[in-house]
Amino acid sequence: MEHVEDTDASNPAGKGDPPDRGGRPGKSEQTRSLILETALRLFRERGYDKTTMRAIAQESGVSVGNAYYYFGSKEHLIHGFYDQVTREHVDRCRQDLRGVRDFGERLQVVLSAWLDVAEPYHAFAVQFFRNAADPESPLSPFSAESYPVRAQVTTLFAEVLRGSSLRIDDELAELLPELLWLHLMGIVLFWVYDRSPDCAKSRAFVARTTPMVERVITLSRYKVFRPLVRDAERLIRDYIVPEGAAAADADGPTAAPADRR
Amino acid sequence: MEHVEDTDASNPAGKGDPPDRGGRPGKSEQTRSLILETALRLFRERGYDKTTMRAIAQESGVSVGNAYYYFGSKEHLIHGFYDQVTREHVDRCRQDLRGVRDFGERLQVVLSAWLDVAEPYHAFAVQFFRNAADPESPLSPFSAESYPVRAQVTTLFAEVLRGSSLRIDDELAELLPELLWLHLMGIVLFWVYDRSPDCAKSRAFVARTTPMVERVITLSRYKVFRPLVRDAERLIRDYIVPEGAAAADADGPTAAPADRR
Repeated sequence: MEHVEDTDASNPAGKGDPPDRGGRPGKSEQTRSLILETALRLFRERGYDKTTMRAIAQESGVSVGNAYYYFGSKEHLIHGFYDQVTREHVDRCRQDLRGVRDFGERLQVVLSAWLDVAEPYHAFAVQFFRNAADPESPLSPFSAESYPVRAQVTTLFAEVLRGSSLRIDDELAELLPELLWLHLMGIVLFWVYDRSPDCAKSRAFVARTTPMVERVITLSRYKVFRPLVRDAERLIRDYIVPEGAAAADADGPTAAPADRR
Repeated sequence: MEHVEDTDASNPAGKGDPPDRGGRPGKSEQTRSLILETALRLFRERGYDKTTMRAIAQESGVSVGNAYYYFGSKEHLIHGFYDQVTREHVDRCRQDLRGVRDFGERLQVVLSAWLDVAEPYHAFAVQFFRNAADPESPLSPFSAESYPVRAQVTTLFAEVLRGSSLRIDDELAELLPELLWLHLMGIVLFWVYDRSPDCAKSRAFVARTTPMVERVITLSRYKVFRPLVRDAERLIRDYIVPEGAAAADADGPTAAPADRR
């Protein structure tokens, strides 16, 4: 393991400039990646609760102060992990979606890609889920802190819709990306508890639910359905992801996770 | 605290006859209730994981063997708790539903009654939820072991439908009680994480979602909706509550929780 010089041990929790600035994707970015990779490996091997920042620093070959410089807490590492998995998922989808026009096929591409990208972290996700299930935890996908990641995925779902041959009106087009994200969260929940080899059951569940989602969307164009769509929209805003909009207004989509707990 | 004679300390885990049989609702039933009440108090005060059968026996004034005689494990105590809360909920609903004919009002009665009955156990539910969230845990409401309790509630929902002025056909009448139970599970999940005083947010959530459920049911009578209803039915059977039917066939609705883990 490469030893990285401790540049700022007296300055933890991200105060001040990073050690290696100046636009280069240099040593600073390398150190950050190294710490994140090491942390994820230790989380997998030892469990999230039992892995300390000290152990992460030691295994990464950096000082504890340096580790805290890049990630203010274990929570920041988890948000770094969310970022990484989300970026990988979104990049992969944008490639795989090229030339696919059928909405159901496009949705299937996105959900299958998520299962592929997440697969190496399944064991970790199972033990970690306890920490993320509480919607008031900053580690919950529903939290204000997770808004930037959520925004990337809802943007992806907006592209899934726009690039498809499905015709939907403006009101639905605005609501659907968030509903599709909620559907993905349902798949994630199913996957967390999936014990089948290679999570085959989750893949079957995706294959079964995708045509149903397509059917619901097709039906939702009927006038008789419209009041329900509006109720659902208000319900989601008021109860399910209220912080999302607030966080977006306050901090913009690239806001760093707040230092809570 | 009354001391109860240890009648069968050498015979734990419910083998053999109970200490006081013969049709009387006598000492045996009293001891059982005493142990259950004590366990629930300790679970609330100390947490489920930290409360031992030994401590439950001691606080109840019975021997450890006697405690095990009535409840083979802590899991059996939880199923005893589910039974008790469910019986209280169902009895309360049957009273409150008298004379109410509007389906939305009837549904509101059932969901509000659940929040009332469960209220004293909110703090316990929050810390206990970790043990019950895994669908493969015998303590999960989705488990085969929880089938008897689930069956009581789906029977109640069938009564909610039958006694209402809502007209639904046979196919829906068969599927809806289970869907309404799933809706209740969604309310329970919301309630577990509700930190508002007196769980006011959960009550507001029930008031908001009940008319939506009514609207969905009304819409589901349209022919265009029917294939979706059928898909949903198959999906639930195959993925969500598959063990329910199996447990019913094998053990009947009064089967005791199996001794797993």
